[in-house]
This record gives sequence, C-alpha cells and structure tokens, in this order.
Amino acid sequence: MTQMTHQITPIILCGGSGTRLWPLSRKAYPKQFQSIFGGDTLFQASARRVSGTAEGIAFRPPVAVTGSDFRFIVAEQLMALGIDPGAILIEPSGRSTAPAVLAAALHVAAADPGAILLVVPSDHVMGQTEAFHAAVAAGAEAAMRGDLVTFGVVPDRAETGYGYLRLPRAPGEAVEAMRLEAFVEKPAEADAERMIADGRHLWNAGIFLFRARDLLVAYARHAPDLTAPVGAAVEGAVPDLGFLRLAPGPWEGCAEISIDYAVMERAENLSVVPLRGGWSDLGSWEAVLNDSARDARGVATHGAATAIDCDDSLLRSETGAVHLVGLGLRNVIAVATEDAVVVVDRARSQEVRTIVEHLKSEGLRQATAFRRDHRPWGHFETLALSERFQVKRIVVKPGAALSLQSHVHRAEHWVVVSGTARVTVDREVRLLTENESVYIPLGTVHRLENPGKVPIVLIEVQTGAYLGEDDIVRYEDSYARG
Amino acid sequence: MTQMTHQITPIILCGGSGTRLWPLSRKAYPKQFQSIFGGDTLFQASARRVSGTAEGIAFRPPVAVTGSDFRFIVAEQLMALGIDPGAILIEPSGRSTAPAVLAAALHVAAADPGAILLVVPSDHVMGQTEAFHAAVAAGAEAAMRGDLVTFGVVPDRAETGYGYLRLPRAPGEAVEAMRLEAFVEKPAEADAERMIADGRHLWNAGIFLFRARDLLVAYARHAPDLTAPVGAAVEGAVPDLGFLRLAPGPWEGCAEISIDYAVMERAENLSVVPLRGGWSDLGSWEAVLNDSARDARGVATHGAATAIDCDDSLLRSETGAVHLVGLGLRNVIAVATEDAVVVVDRARSQEVRTIVEHLKSEGLRQATAFRRDHRPWGHFETLALSERFQVKRIVVKPGAALSLQSHVHRAEHWVVVSGTARVTVDREVRLLTENESVYIPLGTVHRLENPGKVPIVLIEVQTGAYLGEDDIVRYEDSYARG
Repeated sequence: MTQMTHQITPIILCGGSGTRLWPLSRKAYPKQFQSIFGGDTLFQASARRVSGTAEGIAFRPPVAVTGSDFRFIVAEQLMALGIDPGAILIEPSGRSTAPAVLAAALHVAAADPGAILLVVPSDHVMGQTEAFHAAVAAGAEAAMRGDLVTFGVVPDRAETGYGYLRLPRAPGEAVEAMRLEAFVEKPAEADAERMIADGRHLWNAGIFLFRARDLLVAYARHAPDLTAPVGAAVEGAVPDLGFLRLAPGPWEGCAEISIDYAVMERAENLSVVPLRGGWSDLGSWEAVLNDSARDARGVATHGAATAIDCDDSLLRSETGAVHLVGLGLRNVIAVATEDAVVVVDRARSQEVRTIVEHLKSEGLRQATAFRRDHRPWGHFETLALSERFQVKRIVVKPGAALSLQSHVHRAEHWVVVSGTARVTVDREVRLLTENESVYIPLGTVHRLENPGKVPIVLIEVQTGAYLGEDDIVRYEDSYARG
Repeated sequence: MTQMTHQITPIILCGGSGTRLWPLSRKAYPKQFQSIFGGDTLFQASARRVSGTAEGIAFRPPVAVTGSDFRFIVAEQLMALGIDPGAILIEPSGRSTAPAVLAAALHVAAADPGAILLVVPSDHVMGQTEAFHAAVAAGAEAAMRGDLVTFGVVPDRAETGYGYLRLPRAPGEAVEAMRLEAFVEKPAEADAERMIADGRHLWNAGIFLFRARDLLVAYARHAPDLTAPVGAAVEGAVPDLGFLRLAPGPWEGCAEISIDYAVMERAENLSVVPLRGGWSDLGSWEAVLNDSARDARGVATHGAATAIDCDDSLLRSETGAVHLVGLGLRNVIAVATEDAVVVVDRARSQEVRTIVEHLKSEGLRQATAFRRDHRPWGHFETLALSERFQVKRIVVKPGAALSLQSHVHRAEHWVVVSGTARVTVDREVRLLTENESVYIPLGTVHRLENPGKVPIVLIEVQTGAYLGEDDIVRYEDSYARG
C-alpha cells in the first residue's frame, strides 16, 4: 500500500513561565528550557519530536511562539539541535494559546493556506516518539478531510488534574482518528474513576492538528473578536535580528483565552486520535516524581542527592555544588538549587506556585530570577557580592559582542581564563587571551567581543560604591537594546 | 553575712568534632565554633559564661583544651571576646574527656595545686547565667571541703538521651550541693518516666568542679593507667606560637575514656549541685528545634527560611545566599547550607551522624569540610572551580602573612577589593590597595602580607592544568607549617 506523505508545519508554543516546578523553573528561565531528566531540554525534546520525517509525514521547519525574554534561548536551543526555525514569533505579552496559535496560523497561511499545522506545547514529556508520529500521520488524514484534530492520551489512572475528551466508544488498538463527542472539564475524583472505567475518555494533551485555512474559518466563526487584533499584530509585525515581533498595540486588545475555550470546544468538525506510549504534562513535582525512575521503595533521586531509608519521595539537586540528603522521609519532595531549596509534602505539590507569590511579596529575587543571567551575547553569574565589590563569571558566545558601554560608579578588572577576547578600552583595541587581564577605570568607554570560535570565559571583579546592573551607559549595541 | 570569694579556673573542653548537626557542624569547623542561634558561637558563650565575677566567685583566665586543627579558631574566638586565655592546650589526638581534663589539671596544678577547676563543655547552651553562677558558687563550697562536684540539670521531660544523677531526695529550691547517690546510664523510656516522677533524678550535664589536688588524687586512685602517659605528655609539652602542644608520643598511650567512666563513677567524695534555668546539649537538630523560638504551630525558622502551612518543623538556612521554603510539612527538619542540604524526619534526627559516614564513604568533601577553609592567617573560599581555572576569595587578617611560596602548575591574578596588601613577587615588594591587581606567573616565588589594621579581601583567579592546594612549595612560614 502506498501512502501520501503529508507535509506538517509544527507550531511550538514556548512562551509559558511555569512556576509549578519552582525553584528549577522560574520566570527568567522557565521549565520548557530546562533539562528535567538530563539531556535535551523539554523544548528541545519537543522540537526534535516534530522534526525530520516518519512514515507518512515530513516535518517542515517549525514556527516557535515565545516571549521577548526567551527569544535568544529559543534560538540558541534550536541551533544546538541543528534545527533551523521557519520563524520565531515574539508575543508582546502572554495571552494564552488562542491568540498565539492564530498568529502562527496567519503567518504560515500567508504563504500556504493549505499548510497542515501541528500545535504542540513545549513543556510536556512523551514516551514513544514512534507512537506519536503514527498518531500525527493518522491525524493528518483527518485534517485533509477538513477536521480539527485533537490528540487524546489513553489514561492509566483516574487523574483529576486534566481535562478529558469523550469518544463514542473505547478506542481499539488501531491508530485512527475518531469522532470527538465532547470535551470534559477537570473532573471530581468519582467522575474521573467512572470515566476511566468506561474506557471512552482520554486525557486532553493540548496537541492539535489542522489545515491553516480550516483553523482560520473556525476562528472567524467561533472567536471573531480575536481575528482583527491578531491579524493586525501579524500584519504589523517587525523583523528584528531574525525574530518576528508581533505589533504590541493591536496585541494588547486580544482577550487572554486558550484555544480550547475559544475555538475547539465550540467547533463541530472535531476528531480525536488516541495517543499511547506515555505522556506527562510535568505539571508539578509530583508529576516529575511519577515520571522518574524510582527504586523499590518508590524513591527517585536526581543529581547530587542521597536518600537514606526514605520511601515514596523525590530528592533532586539541580547543581553539582549542593549535595542534598534525605533521611527517613516518606512522601516528601525536596529540590535544591544553588540559591533556593523547596521541601514539600507530596500531597501539596500543586501548591508550589503559591510559594512564588509568597516570595515575590517579600521581594526575593529567587521568586523569579536565577543567579545566572542570560543575555543575547551569552550569560553571566555573580560569584560573590559584597557592599563594595562583585565577582562575576562571564561567558561570551563565539562571534558575540557586549555593547560599547561605560559605568559611572564602578571600575572593572577582567581576567580571561578561557578563549580569546577582543577588548576595547577608550581608543585602544587589543586581544586578550588566557591568563591575561585588563583594568577598566571608572568612566572609561569599553567593549568586550569574542572574535574566536570558542566561548570566552572571563572573571570580572567590580569595585565601587554602587554595583547595580543599571549603572550602564550604552553607546552601541548589536542586540537593539536601550 | 560575708562570703568568701572563690577563685575559679575554667577548663573549657573544645576538641570535639560533633557530626550530629551536619551540615552546619563538620569536622573542619564543628558545632562549638558555630553560632547556632545568632551572636556568640557556642564556644564563645561558654567562655563568656565562665569569665568575670559573680556573687562568691571570680573566674581566672580559662584553660582551653582542643585539637591542632582548631587552635587558631579558639584563639581568634577568644580574642573577639577580649578574653585572654591562661593556656590553650593542644591534644595530639582526641582521647575523650578523661585525658584532656587530667592534662589541664596537671598544667594548672603545677603552679597552684589548690586551684579550683571548673570543667565545662563548649557545645551546650544554658539559659540563665545567674543560676549557673549561683550553682558554681555553691559547688565551690563543697569543693573546698574536698568533694568532686557534678552539676545536675533539673529535668522537664523524660529524656532517654541523657545519663542521670540520683540524689537521696528531691532537691528543694535552695541552691546547694547534695550528696550524689549514683550515676544512672541513659535509661529506657519507662525508667526515664519513673525517674522524672520521683523527682530525685537530674540530668548529668557533664560539668564538674573540684580542687586540682583532689582530682589528681582521684585519678591516681581510680585511673592510675592514665597518670603516667598524661603526665609525660604535659611534661614534654612544647610551646608553639602561644599554644602548648602536648607531647604526642606519651599521649598516644592513653586510653580513650570519659572522665565519668574513668574517675567520677568510681569516686566516693561526690556531690551534686542542682541546676535550673534551662540547659541543652544541642545533641541533635531535634534538640535545636526544642531550644528554638517556635510559632503557634510549633515551627521554628532561622535565617533565609520560609514556612508555609507547616507544623512542628524546623527550617534553617545557614546562609543568606540560599532561601529555604517548606510547604505543608509536619515533623520535618530541613537545614540548608551553601553546599549541602539535609532533610530529615524529626524522629530520626539522632541518625544524622550516619549521613556523614555515608557521604565519607562516597568521598564527598561535604562530609567533613566546608567551602570556606580556615587558616592561621585568615580564610579563603572557592567561588568557582573549573577544569582550567579557580576563583577564590581570600581574607587575610591584619598583621598576618601567607608563607613565601611558589606553584609548579598554576599562575595567579590577585585583585585587591578591600584593605592594603604587601605583595612580594620575586625580588620586588610593593603595596597593593583597593582596585589594584598583580599577576604572578607560574613558578614565581611570592608572598602576601597584611601590614595594615583592617582585613585584606582579595579575589584570586588561578589558571593552570592542576589547581590542587598541594601544588605549593613553601620557603618560609610564620605558622610553622611544612
């Protein structure tokens, strides 16, 4: 039997700033860009899953939709995989999934209204990629008939944390699109058990497949209020260093609403492809524990962590510099990072997001930011901070450059410990290599560039009465920053 | 009524390396030298408690007995209090309390056989100093009659973790020495409850008071095996930069035995002074919790720690750099330091010492050492460590000097961020002040000194293929190190 190969354009939604996996996931560098189980980040795993070819499908370059703060992270993480994005759309602010998907669909449809779009979240894990690809291929057949396709995970427990998709009958072993009878909201426990028992209910995985033009028709019919502002935001989008910035003015007029509520639950041409082979939204540390390899006593450890005589617990150290030890614990989750530690009763793991609110109200940096700060040119982290001095480790990517700048309140010493830097101090430009140092007096105009092929690592020692990041006068910047 | 004022010579035992408060207390810098509740360290509080004068007593300069690794810590912590020690005796190795007390007694008796000695541990907390002083005054009266005096804490619970002292009758309110009927080993729970009920049993606080000559008689009678080796160790002691190093040869011949077992439990001229007003040996994190201020739900926090909806738990962050959050915990103890975190069920808090064994067997530095390393001249800590470079913050005390040294495998950059350093590089000597830096090429003979009145803080960036502390060739050293 010959089969048609469907060209699929992935839309990867990666603008979220999940706080439920705090302190690993923070607004400044959220969960989808973190490696939870080692190796690829969740975003990378998602991107990899929708690249290349499989039986009956071939993936086109993906379209990523993200926030301004994450644009360089998205670009970098895709580059590390060797994946060239079709576009990276920048949302001026988070508006949930309906506006984001519509913007991406309009962008793709401008060139190809018949394009088949696969909308995927970037912060979930999936077990078997082959099973996912087979489901996508089956979904593409339905999409070619004009259906809006959802994917339903065949459940293994009566979970109350997910919405469900109701089918006319329990799915068989064949991977095929079935008619969607109804969306079911997150259920009470008894209802969840009844639904598992009848076999006709699948978890709503938040993955969608449709032709661009069919989706646009559905938005026009079911969410007409969104079409004008999102259309204007795409129309007025501005290219910026390879990113596409949606126009902020019209965007602000969009309602914050999910594609489920805005479109899918109101449409009629819906079908579902059952998905087997493992899936988790990693929506809490409890979910991470359930998805981790556990020992005979139900304990999972990750990184520099030791469990002594514990049961049914999760112990994670997210940094080799901190060793975490649990002793005699039962149903406890503990996660240690360089600058924050959470210890939570397993049953309360959904409430971790409240911690973030709590810490925010106390003005604590750890609520939202990390010690390491990501910039377009690389990253830096503070190694030591006192009243009169600060020590930073600065890493500059090959080919990148910091802005031409000066400081009013601080002098700086740079010691290069790896790579070769091109350093401008006043009018003098020189190369600095491993073991060499330079002094930048207060007020001096200076710049740091990496003309080489390997990252520069340098240690910066700042001295002065005020050491805030905002003591900076920029004269020139490659990244269009103020 | 006029009262005689007794001159009391304190013997402060501070050689222990308690591991039960890991990760705050580690072999390299144990509990007695840490501040557990803020302010004075336990050792300092102990030294302060046995200094100055009170009704009926006047304290002489204390004699501290400690290990070689702690000698500079002892000297520094006493200096910070303005307490000038009578002597700091260095045990060549830990041999429990019997040899240590005998060595101190012999040292004091050489000049004054009639001296009244007060032996105190340095890692306990005591509530009311006045009550303690009144008890010591009462004990001194008994000691002047030739008694060996112990102190018994009036208990407030049926504790199974302590030994007990049995009295002929329940003590009244008067603070007076009573006859000791018997020592009772750590009891089973039912026995502890019976002892609390009869009111005649006090906790053995490990504090002793006697005239030096009476104690020497007691050793001669009950522990004659110790007198020869300890006598020889004191006889052969060598003064070293103000410390008195007991002779290691004879010392190694001593049994490792406590003064309780070796002498007190065998003697007959024993009396007990009841002690009220609060006491704890801080022998576990559970004991620390019991001694901490707790909220209405039984939760104690310390430092950068937040408890959300917790009960009967202890949350401590020992560093401002790490924020610890507990959510929904019950009967959990969590302690976070810069490089290690422990989370333990309260009922298992006695087993924390087993963690140390566990981590030792895995070769983990955190088992015994801190990131900060104390040296006679000050301290340093590693801010960043990579394969090819290391960044350290180095603090040099006023008047102190590092050895004249060179390294085979590494070059160093020093940036002074506070204070003024005298730096020798090859034959050149120069002063370096805030904001100035110097480069020390591989192989160059160099020295760092603090000629000033304030500490030097400098940032050292090392580069090289091997960065171990043992890559050092010493040419001259003020602290008699090899």
